[in-house]
Amino acid sequence: MGTLNSNNNPQTQSNFPKFNPLDPEEFRTQARQMVDFIADYYKNIESYPVLSQVEPGYLRTQLPENAPNRPESFDLIMKDVQNHIIPGMTHWLSPNFFAFFPATVSSAAFLGEMLCNCFNSVGFNWLASPAMTELEMVVMDWLANMLKLPKTFMFSGTGGGVLQSTTSEAILCTLIAARDRKIENVGVDEIGKFVVYGSDQTHSTYSKACKVAGIFPCNIRVVPTCIESDFALSPVVLRGIIVAAGLVPLFLCATVGTTSTTAVDPLGQLAEEFNIWFHVDAAYGGSACICPEFRQYLDGVERADSLSLSPHKWLLSYLDCCCMWVREPNVLVKTLSTNPEYLRNERSEYDSVVDYKDWQIGTGRKFKSLRLWFVMRSYGVANLQIHIRSDVRMAKMFEGFVKSDPMFDVVVPRRFSLVCFRFNPNKEHEPGYVEFLNKKLLDSVNSTGQIYMTHTIVGGIYMLRFALRIDM
Amino acid sequence: MGTLNSNNNPQTQSNFPKFNPLDPEEFRTQARQMVDFIADYYKNIESYPVLSQVEPGYLRTQLPENAPNRPESFDLIMKDVQNHIIPGMTHWLSPNFFAFFPATVSSAAFLGEMLCNCFNSVGFNWLASPAMTELEMVVMDWLANMLKLPKTFMFSGTGGGVLQSTTSEAILCTLIAARDRKIENVGVDEIGKFVVYGSDQTHSTYSKACKVAGIFPCNIRVVPTCIESDFALSPVVLRGIIVAAGLVPLFLCATVGTTSTTAVDPLGQLAEEFNIWFHVDAAYGGSACICPEFRQYLDGVERADSLSLSPHKWLLSYLDCCCMWVREPNVLVKTLSTNPEYLRNERSEYDSVVDYKDWQIGTGRKFKSLRLWFVMRSYGVANLQIHIRSDVRMAKMFEGFVKSDPMFDVVVPRRFSLVCFRFNPNKEHEPGYVEFLNKKLLDSVNSTGQIYMTHTIVGGIYMLRFALRIDM
Repeated sequence: MGTLNSNNNPQTQSNFPKFNPLDPEEFRTQARQMVDFIADYYKNIESYPVLSQVEPGYLRTQLPENAPNRPESFDLIMKDVQNHIIPGMTHWLSPNFFAFFPATVSSAAFLGEMLCNCFNSVGFNWLASPAMTELEMVVMDWLANMLKLPKTFMFSGTGGGVLQSTTSEAILCTLIAARDRKIENVGVDEIGKFVVYGSDQTHSTYSKACKVAGIFPCNIRVVPTCIESDFALSPVVLRGIIVAAGLVPLFLCATVGTTSTTAVDPLGQLAEEFNIWFHVDAAYGGSACICPEFRQYLDGVERADSLSLSPHKWLLSYLDCCCMWVREPNVLVKTLSTNPEYLRNERSEYDSVVDYKDWQIGTGRKFKSLRLWFVMRSYGVANLQIHIRSDVRMAKMFEGFVKSDPMFDVVVPRRFSLVCFRFNPNKEHEPGYVEFLNKKLLDSVNSTGQIYMTHTIVGGIYMLRFALRIDM
Repeated sequence: MGTLNSNNNPQTQSNFPKFNPLDPEEFRTQARQMVDFIADYYKNIESYPVLSQVEPGYLRTQLPENAPNRPESFDLIMKDVQNHIIPGMTHWLSPNFFAFFPATVSSAAFLGEMLCNCFNSVGFNWLASPAMTELEMVVMDWLANMLKLPKTFMFSGTGGGVLQSTTSEAILCTLIAARDRKIENVGVDEIGKFVVYGSDQTHSTYSKACKVAGIFPCNIRVVPTCIESDFALSPVVLRGIIVAAGLVPLFLCATVGTTSTTAVDPLGQLAEEFNIWFHVDAAYGGSACICPEFRQYLDGVERADSLSLSPHKWLLSYLDCCCMWVREPNVLVKTLSTNPEYLRNERSEYDSVVDYKDWQIGTGRKFKSLRLWFVMRSYGVANLQIHIRSDVRMAKMFEGFVKSDPMFDVVVPRRFSLVCFRFNPNKEHEPGYVEFLNKKLLDSVNSTGQIYMTHTIVGGIYMLRFALRIDM
């Protein structure tokens, strides 16, 4: 059915040539040109200012108000990419990018993503593309094994994993699974009493997810942390707050590697005696746990109900790729499943296959596991460990430079590859003045376009964040 | 900072070579090989069974239990793709795929996505990559213009658009914006009274999104439709239900092109006198409205609060790409914004730039607008219209075949490129027997691997869905 007889087709006789948007040979030619563009971009990336220097609104004035009516050439579009898009990019893959957390990448993941797009299969249920579902199950177990997760999180045990796009989605899915399980016990009218817990260092997306899920904002409890415990969640303080609440404790989100300072909450000591869903957000720090020397940070994870970890941060996987494991898939599926007639099929009904649409918010989904499969196979576990260790070693080196200079402080202990420090030339200075100095320093560094780093404020202390990596 | 002096690096002297996962020349070589693989796949796609013929669990037995410790070669991985992955694929891009809705693609979108991955920038706020935010604003206005949307949905007017991954996310975002605006007026304790409306043809993801947002399941009202009105939402029936509710009407989701039969709800006559958030889900049908002859189906959209449309369905854009426009961005931003210290910057605070993280559930986001920009420029509006019209013409042709055969019925009027029909050889047959015959027919067609089509049941009638397209 690929061809429409052109004799019956008045359009082909019009001013426009027959329209074939996926001619394999045109695809081959143009995609090769794009590969060359990208390889050259990676080669020359250091020549661009890492932080874009454009002003707000710069692009609109350079582009037409409307889409063109007639086709424009690949060369013309690529010229605009070079002239108008690249100057407005903040180059996250630049070796001079030390802001936020790195979004690490690799040839292998790029290839896997090309293949994912090649197929463009939509894997909402098993039948819609069996390989999509089954490879995802395999790689989720592979990564679980690399992290030495308990069998309770694996398909080869009693749990299972799924690829989400972001931590936000992972948290939202587990949260509503927890919420609906609780509603079954206590009734939907009690939703106003459901209380959720995190620390003041939990990612901002957590409280957003809680609000999305209908948790009353007044019931989102934030456990304060302090510099004395390296901004980790204190089990003692948490226990006091949970007990004091007198409401319905629902959900706790602990973090392995907080966004501000990479603090690690003590998983093994949290949420012991409460009937609460315990989620571990290991978006950044979790990846390091593929190395035995970092695995301690996941100690206690066997008591969690769910865990999320984003390989797009530190496992070379490109956006957007967040792994989520759950101990009781049936609880998740119960709350997220849909069963419209147009998706019904015998495989789903009689063969108890995994239908991943019931593990996520949306219906459609891509073949993301190819990326992780390509990464794990192309490099092997040993190289992925080398990659983590190299970044950490580089951070240690930078930490050493900071420590050796009396004008600078390392503000919190470095655990992974982020160094939090500040310029503090005279210990007599007022805190406000030290903050002012550091803001000045940050602005002057970033405005050069030669380095991009960011800041945070934790425990009232303004500090600079320097996130190291040596991928390229 | 891209290099770590190898003299200081004991790992480089170990059994593993120095690890550089993004060497530009290795990238160039391998990515070109992948381009060739993909071009060949597209060339030969018709040679594969369109619906995978594997059995559940087929893949696990063929793959090792653990990720390898040492690297494996690109050739070996690609051999496994050919031998183990491809047999398990349902080939959505095959010209023999007529199931669900097509997920259309194009060289241009593939190139745009390659470039998106190339940069791998994370555009949560303006500063994190100005070009990402600004190009998205431009293409959302371009597409809005192509659809002749009112200025109230455009940045060049008083609204604006954003790219989500899926319709589910678009609905969820607008729903919680509506919910939180209502909560401001009536108080959070009233959430148990919020009522939402859709028809029995609204996509299943709608009720899922409502449940995610904490709408009580008993308050998700389903307006029945009937064959006499082509399964479109009846304004009269809706009005009766809204008035009868006596609760707090919150949200209405209307559809332009329902999933089962591409019914179109009469936007211009809905939700007139109620203080309700009115969302239009035009995931499939919306794309056709770039042609003047189909634009009527969006008549009345000027009264909606929000609109979503998925170019990954019918505008050649690969997954996952869903456009969403809102009339009052500030209502959306109010409910979805976060402002953690580590993301604060002067641009966001003083220049009132768009920070797209406040228009979506998650924080991280990709440079998806490149795909749409490449599609619109590479083909031009005129060719995109030709593409829509060719598909529709093909569907008309198929509809003609069905109609000319007295053994078959067209069950509902064809509007776009989906034909809903059934085998009905003898009008005296019991409905149950007709259903049985059609199930048999569907199974026997699909089991050949030569065609894949699906079914639905609407108004009690079992029918076959044949979704036409001629992209390749």
